[in-house]
Amino acid sequence: MTDAFKIGIAGLGTVGTGVIKILTQNADIIAARAGRPIEIMAVSARSKNKDRGVDLSNYDWVDDAGDMAARDDLDCVVELIGGSEGLAADLVRGALNGKKHVVTANKALVAHHGYELAEIAEGNGVSLNYEAAVAGGIPVIKAMREGLAANKFSAVYGILNGTCNYILTEMRETGRDFADVLKDAQEAGYAEADPTFDVEGVDAAHKLCILSSIAFGVKPDFEALTVSGISRINATDITFASEFGYRIKLLGVAQEVDGEILQVVEPCVVPIGSPLGAIEDVYNAVYVDGNFVETPLLTGKGAGEGPTASSVVADIIDLARGISLPTFGVPVSQLKDLSPLDAGACKGSYYLRLNVLDQPGVLAEVSAILRDHNISVEGMSQHGRDPDQPVPIVLTTHEAIHADMVKAAELIEALDFCVETPCLMVVRDI
Amino acid sequence: MTDAFKIGIAGLGTVGTGVIKILTQNADIIAARAGRPIEIMAVSARSKNKDRGVDLSNYDWVDDAGDMAARDDLDCVVELIGGSEGLAADLVRGALNGKKHVVTANKALVAHHGYELAEIAEGNGVSLNYEAAVAGGIPVIKAMREGLAANKFSAVYGILNGTCNYILTEMRETGRDFADVLKDAQEAGYAEADPTFDVEGVDAAHKLCILSSIAFGVKPDFEALTVSGISRINATDITFASEFGYRIKLLGVAQEVDGEILQVVEPCVVPIGSPLGAIEDVYNAVYVDGNFVETPLLTGKGAGEGPTASSVVADIIDLARGISLPTFGVPVSQLKDLSPLDAGACKGSYYLRLNVLDQPGVLAEVSAILRDHNISVEGMSQHGRDPDQPVPIVLTTHEAIHADMVKAAELIEALDFCVETPCLMVVRDI
Repeated sequence: MTDAFKIGIAGLGTVGTGVIKILTQNADIIAARAGRPIEIMAVSARSKNKDRGVDLSNYDWVDDAGDMAARDDLDCVVELIGGSEGLAADLVRGALNGKKHVVTANKALVAHHGYELAEIAEGNGVSLNYEAAVAGGIPVIKAMREGLAANKFSAVYGILNGTCNYILTEMRETGRDFADVLKDAQEAGYAEADPTFDVEGVDAAHKLCILSSIAFGVKPDFEALTVSGISRINATDITFASEFGYRIKLLGVAQEVDGEILQVVEPCVVPIGSPLGAIEDVYNAVYVDGNFVETPLLTGKGAGEGPTASSVVADIIDLARGISLPTFGVPVSQLKDLSPLDAGACKGSYYLRLNVLDQPGVLAEVSAILRDHNISVEGMSQHGRDPDQPVPIVLTTHEAIHADMVKAAELIEALDFCVETPCLMVVRDI
Repeated sequence: MTDAFKIGIAGLGTVGTGVIKILTQNADIIAARAGRPIEIMAVSARSKNKDRGVDLSNYDWVDDAGDMAARDDLDCVVELIGGSEGLAADLVRGALNGKKHVVTANKALVAHHGYELAEIAEGNGVSLNYEAAVAGGIPVIKAMREGLAANKFSAVYGILNGTCNYILTEMRETGRDFADVLKDAQEAGYAEADPTFDVEGVDAAHKLCILSSIAFGVKPDFEALTVSGISRINATDITFASEFGYRIKLLGVAQEVDGEILQVVEPCVVPIGSPLGAIEDVYNAVYVDGNFVETPLLTGKGAGEGPTASSVVADIIDLARGISLPTFGVPVSQLKDLSPLDAGACKGSYYLRLNVLDQPGVLAEVSAILRDHNISVEGMSQHGRDPDQPVPIVLTTHEAIHADMVKAAELIEALDFCVETPCLMVVRDI
């Protein structure tokens, strides 16, 4: 048998210990598939003595993870520390410069510094693999970089954050409001103590940024993303959306139109029976449009120890097999700068929920504003009446220009009877 | 730029011409991803002068496809002739023996001769790639051989034949019977003039045989498969299944239990809301159970020019990139002989539809037979009454032993009042 493929693991949280469990429990089959054993030489984490449920006694303990980069007994450093800056970033740079392959689950790092890291990797003849950074156990990076590589992509859509999808599903099933469901999710361990990255769409945006780069052959450009989260969605929206035949989903959408690219993460309304409308709970899903493949969909649990660690180990197996690919699917020199598409010029149908005082003339004023912005109403719903108290009204529109919708919503918000910022969401038929 | 990767294409039907279209239309992006251009040197088909809508004038025409194997200007032969024997098999053997990589969409060939071909490929240091053989444009072979390679698999389930899934969906939506829907599907081009391979489950069985080999590291063993098709499903079954909350699906199921493997293709009843129950029309889906990844699901259109050709070209790009993998995920020497699991010993819940004369005592006799075989009834439904005429009765059972169910069904069929072979289907909660 060929020499072992030797790795060091930096970061022993849930995913890091999961990687050790897989490499231990499945050692035989992994060696058979990789053509050689995979051997853990060294590990590193903040606390040496914490009980992690795995035996670390056969591995060198490295106090400073950064020292992994300089060890000459490693073929590959596995970075599971997290964060786009600091120790994780230094370690990855150091390892690549030291001609070691790197496997990471760090979506923030790849989204923010992917281009620089790809240059370093390519310059040193090593690989940066990051399957686990997007959609946990679902091999979506492999599908896009390899399995669908025959295609020009025009769009990639994803439900990329399991926490948000769980919260939205739970809100719908129980009729409870966002804050209430979030609190329970935190107590049950489905949401972080600081949920900002998840619920405000940042986590999904990191993932979309990576998918967009592979899909369109552009340098990852996180700044070009428009991001909003689900905290402004309330139980009323969920109910109204269902009434109109929709589900509310936090979608990542990247589209290329004439060389310009739209990258947006935002809550959208999606038909109930559609491929993404049917994805519930903690499930993730990715859907792509290629010019020869319609709509392959990859679905699965997007997080958790097992799935994420499974993808980390798959990346390691690839490297042990000698598979090495350009970081974003094409050589660095061929990655283009991203030309952002003007979102305001995009057309779409919209869901607009207002919270207005129930008084005469409201609909006349709203209708006039919509008319003045070339917005044609498709459907309208108001539940109950409560004179002079706030009531929700939902409108759905025919195709309109995004900037017009935004402007109309602003003008409506400025009216006296409008008691809350309107909730505006685009309809995505996917 | 590195030297071109040179291919010959044998077989210019729908898929073959699709491959030419992709390599032509997407030449730039494919060269960027592969790191080198992919160049078609030679093509071969039965008829030279047929108009295929693609320009063949830049390629050498080879009259006898078998001659491709001996050309010294090719890195890879793309076999799109089809059939498990004859020209296709000879060409693939010849090409591999001639140290050329082979890409094929030929499921019958890989299912029947995969082990022998894997030996030849490995012995000659070349690859046999066959992504397009299973589930068209969905990169399921790549997912199982690579993306999920960290896992020990316990099961793989699939809706693997789009024609059958289309027919079953259409039967449910229109209430029409099998033969009637099949006839329309043939006229519309969704089913072959000779539909046997599709509707009798042979096509799905070829695909399952391949997936099973990768999942469990066994030599492909088509003879070990139990196969039945959908021609015995009637409109009544579809209606009753819906009433009980089920869809009828032609499922391929491969499961490993203590080193023994079950491989079966058969119509099953599946809960309406389940991952596979929700897959309708021509869509395919594959669902796997790994020991660290739960249930990733790949869905997509499983056939057609674009998707199938997309997978063929992805295989070619892999080879151009220098990616070479063992045919079934592990070296040939490590592929085990398959020990078939005794299906009769398996437990499950069942759907049993009888067609019986509506007369006193029927239920008593049926119930006695079930009781004598330790089969406990969960639900029962009979629609309408028609004394002394045949009426359908459906029973669903609690968990029972498969051999007992089969025996009970046989005894029921032998009763005077039973006018038709009972329809027995296992319930699969996936």
